[in-house]
Amino acid sequence: MVNPLFLPELREMLAEDNAAELTEFCNTLNAGRTAEFMEGLEDTDLWAVLQYADADRRAEIFGYFDEQRQVGLLQSQEPRQVAELVDRIPSDDRVDLFQQLTGTRAQTILPLLPVADRRDIQRLCSYDEGTAGSLMTSEVAMLSETLTVSGALEALGNQASELETIYYLYVVDEDNLLRGIVSTRQLVSSLRTPSRTLGDLMETDVVVAEVDEDQESVAEKVEHFNLLAIPVVDSGRQLLGIITHDDVIDVVREELTEDAHRIAAVEPLEEDYLRIGLLNLSWKRGIWLIILFFAALLTAFALEHYHEELNKFIWLVSFIPLIISAGGNSGSQSATLVITAMTSGQVELDQWRKVLGREVIVATVLGIFLALIGYAVAIFLAPTPVAALVIPMTLVAVIFVGCFFGASLPLIFQRLGLDPAMMSNPFVAGIVDILGIIIYINIARLLL
Amino acid sequence: MVNPLFLPELREMLAEDNAAELTEFCNTLNAGRTAEFMEGLEDTDLWAVLQYADADRRAEIFGYFDEQRQVGLLQSQEPRQVAELVDRIPSDDRVDLFQQLTGTRAQTILPLLPVADRRDIQRLCSYDEGTAGSLMTSEVAMLSETLTVSGALEALGNQASELETIYYLYVVDEDNLLRGIVSTRQLVSSLRTPSRTLGDLMETDVVVAEVDEDQESVAEKVEHFNLLAIPVVDSGRQLLGIITHDDVIDVVREELTEDAHRIAAVEPLEEDYLRIGLLNLSWKRGIWLIILFFAALLTAFALEHYHEELNKFIWLVSFIPLIISAGGNSGSQSATLVITAMTSGQVELDQWRKVLGREVIVATVLGIFLALIGYAVAIFLAPTPVAALVIPMTLVAVIFVGCFFGASLPLIFQRLGLDPAMMSNPFVAGIVDILGIIIYINIARLLL
Repeated sequence: MVNPLFLPELREMLAEDNAAELTEFCNTLNAGRTAEFMEGLEDTDLWAVLQYADADRRAEIFGYFDEQRQVGLLQSQEPRQVAELVDRIPSDDRVDLFQQLTGTRAQTILPLLPVADRRDIQRLCSYDEGTAGSLMTSEVAMLSETLTVSGALEALGNQASELETIYYLYVVDEDNLLRGIVSTRQLVSSLRTPSRTLGDLMETDVVVAEVDEDQESVAEKVEHFNLLAIPVVDSGRQLLGIITHDDVIDVVREELTEDAHRIAAVEPLEEDYLRIGLLNLSWKRGIWLIILFFAALLTAFALEHYHEELNKFIWLVSFIPLIISAGGNSGSQSATLVITAMTSGQVELDQWRKVLGREVIVATVLGIFLALIGYAVAIFLAPTPVAALVIPMTLVAVIFVGCFFGASLPLIFQRLGLDPAMMSNPFVAGIVDILGIIIYINIARLLL
Repeated sequence: MVNPLFLPELREMLAEDNAAELTEFCNTLNAGRTAEFMEGLEDTDLWAVLQYADADRRAEIFGYFDEQRQVGLLQSQEPRQVAELVDRIPSDDRVDLFQQLTGTRAQTILPLLPVADRRDIQRLCSYDEGTAGSLMTSEVAMLSETLTVSGALEALGNQASELETIYYLYVVDEDNLLRGIVSTRQLVSSLRTPSRTLGDLMETDVVVAEVDEDQESVAEKVEHFNLLAIPVVDSGRQLLGIITHDDVIDVVREELTEDAHRIAAVEPLEEDYLRIGLLNLSWKRGIWLIILFFAALLTAFALEHYHEELNKFIWLVSFIPLIISAGGNSGSQSATLVITAMTSGQVELDQWRKVLGREVIVATVLGIFLALIGYAVAIFLAPTPVAALVIPMTLVAVIFVGCFFGASLPLIFQRLGLDPAMMSNPFVAGIVDILGIIIYINIARLLL
C-alpha cells in the first residue's frame, strides 16, 4: 500500500536536510503507516529518510515494505548501513531476505554482522522450505526453572526489545532441552507471589513442532491449540526456536491458495502471479492442460467410433457440449467441496460412506431438476417427444457419474497418500467426459 | 480429534467416583489434549468428568470440543452447571454458542447468569454476521492514562484470568473513548521506570476496526500490521471490544474456502459440508448448475444452426469436446489465478493492462503447444492434412479466448463491485463454450 499524501513534504525535508522534522516523521506515527507514506519514494530517498529513525524503529518500518522492495534496498544500499539494519530484523524474516540476495552481496554483508547473527543466518538457511525450521525465529526467551517470578520479569524486561514475542517464556535446562513453558499471562497473574519459581508455574505438557515437520501440520497445531507461538525442537527435544502466529496466517493463506490453484489444474506458483516468469507460468499451466487434453482426446476417439449413429441422428450432436458440461460442472462441485472439507478438517477419510451417501442424494435431486429443464428444451430440437427422452435420461446418469467420481476421487487420492487437490479435478474431468459420451450414445441407441 | 487411549480408565474412575484421580486427570495435561482424551465419552459422562476441573480450567477444556458437541452439552446438561460454565467462556465464543441454543433453553440459562454477562451476550448478539462486531470479545483491559507502569501491571495481574488477551492494554478516558494502546512488551520493558504513566508510553496512532466493518477487511488489517489483537470501536471511537488473532485465522480460512467454492460454482456453505441439510446443499449447487446449463444450451442452439456443415464433415464432431474443454480449462486457470491473486492483494485493479498482457503471452505459448499436439492427432482422423489444420487453428483461437476472458472477467466484476470469485467462472465457461463452437465451425467453413 503506497500513500502519496506526504511525498512532497518528505522530498522537501530531504532537500533541506531537515533532521528535526524527518526524525519526527519517522517516530510519531504507527510504523505500518509510516511505511505506507514512505513507499512512494525512490530507493535512495527512502533509504535516506529511514536513517532518521532509531535503529529498532527503522527495522520495524522496513518490515512493512513489500518483500521485493526490501530485497532491492538490501541489495543496493550502503553495506554498513544495511548490516546495521539486518542486525535488527527478526531472525526468521532476515533469513528469507538473505536467501534472495545475490551471492556476492550476501558475502559483502555477512562479514559486517556480529558473529552470533552470522551463525544464526547460516543455520536457519539450512532448513528446507515448507518445514517448521524454515519458518522459525531463534529469538526466544529461554530461562531456567530456578528463576523466580520477579527475576523472570526483570530478565524479560531486559530482553524484550530483542525478542519477536515475549508472550511465552520457555524453560530450558543447561543443555537447552525444553522443560516447560510459562505464559506471560501466568507470570503477570503470579506477581503477588514474586518468589515462586518458573519451575512451579510452568506447564510441562507442551505442544511442540519438530524442526522438520511440515508447515501445514504446524499450522494445524497452532490453530487447534489457539497458540500465539509454538516452540520448535529437534529430535532430542532441544529448543531451536519458535514460530509465531503471524507466520501461521501466511501458511494457512498459502496452503489454501495452493489448493485453489490445484483444483483449477494449475501447479501452485512459488511466486506472486505478477512476478513469476512467463515461461515458468506457461509450464505450470501447460503441463496440466496437456494431461487434460489427452483425456479429452479419448472422447474424440469415442465419438469417432459413433460416427454412424451421429450421422443418422445429427440433432444429437447439438447436445454434446451440454451433456459434457453438466457432468463436468457437477463433478467439479463435488470434488471441490470434498477437497476443501478435507483441508479444513471437516471430513476425515473414514467418513467416506457418509460422503458418498450424501452425494448420491444430492446427485439425484440435481439430476432430476436439470433433466426436467433439459427435456423441455429437447422437445423442440428432437424429432419426436420419445426421442427427446434421450436428453433427460442422459443428464440424470451423467450428473450421477459426475458427483460420484467427483466425491470419491479426492478420498481415493488422499487414501493413496497423493494430494487430493492436485489430482482430482483433472481425473474427474477426464472420466466424466468419456463416460458421458458413452452413456449418451448408448441411451440413444436404446431409444432411437 | 478423539483419542480413545484413556477412555476405559475414565469410565472406571467415574464408576468408582474416584475424585482424586479425576481431578488429577483434568488438571495435569495441556487442556487441548485433556479434551481429546475426553471427547470419546458420552455427553453425561463427559459432563461428569468436567465437573472435577476448576471452573476456569473447565471452560478451557470445553473450548477444545467441536462446536456441535459444545452446543449439545449446553443444550442438555444441568442448567446451573451450564450457567456456571457459560460465565467462564470467552465472550465472543459464548455468543456464537448461545445463538445456536433453542429459544426456551436460552431463556432458561440467561436468568442464571450475572447481570453483566447477560447484557454482554444480548449486546453481542445484535451485531450482523460477518462484521467486526460479530467477532469481537468484550473482555478487554481498559485502563486510564494516569495509571503508572507498576499500577498497570498490578491491575493486569488481578484481571489476567478473565481477559482473553493481556498482550495489549487499551487506554481509555472516562467515556471509554480509545486514547491509545500500550503493549505488554512495552510495559515489561519499562519496569525499570515504574512511575511512568500509560499516557507516556502509549501509542496514539492506533489501527482500529469499526464495529460494522467487514470481517475480511479486519483480517487484512491484522495481517498487514502483524497484530495480536485489534480494538473495535463505534463511530464515536468508543472502545467496544477486541478481535484476537485466532479469530482472524478463522476468517482467512473461511474467506479463502468461500473463494474456492465460488470458483467451482457452488454458493458458499454456511455450515460444515457434512452437516448442511441436503436440500440446502442441492440448492447451493443447483442454482449455479442451472445458470451454467442455460449457458450450455446456447451452444446447443449454435450447433443446431450448423447441422449442415457437421453432417457434411462428420469427423468435425469428434473434436467438439476437445475444443470446448481446451478453452474451458485454460479459461478457468486464468480466472482462478487472477481471483486468488486479487484476494491475496498481489493484483490491484489498476494493473489490468499488465495482467492482460501477460495472459496474451501465456495464451500464445499454450495455444501453439496444444495446437502442435492437436494437429498430430487430427491428421489421423481428418480426411486430408489440410483439413486437419482446422483443429490446431481452432485450438490457438479458443485458448486465446479462454485466457483473455478468464483474466478479464474477474477484473471487470471487481470493477463493478461484484464478487469476482462468484461471477467469473460460470460466465467464462458460457462465453468460451459458445465462442469456441462459432470459431470452430467458421474456421472449418473457410478451410474445407
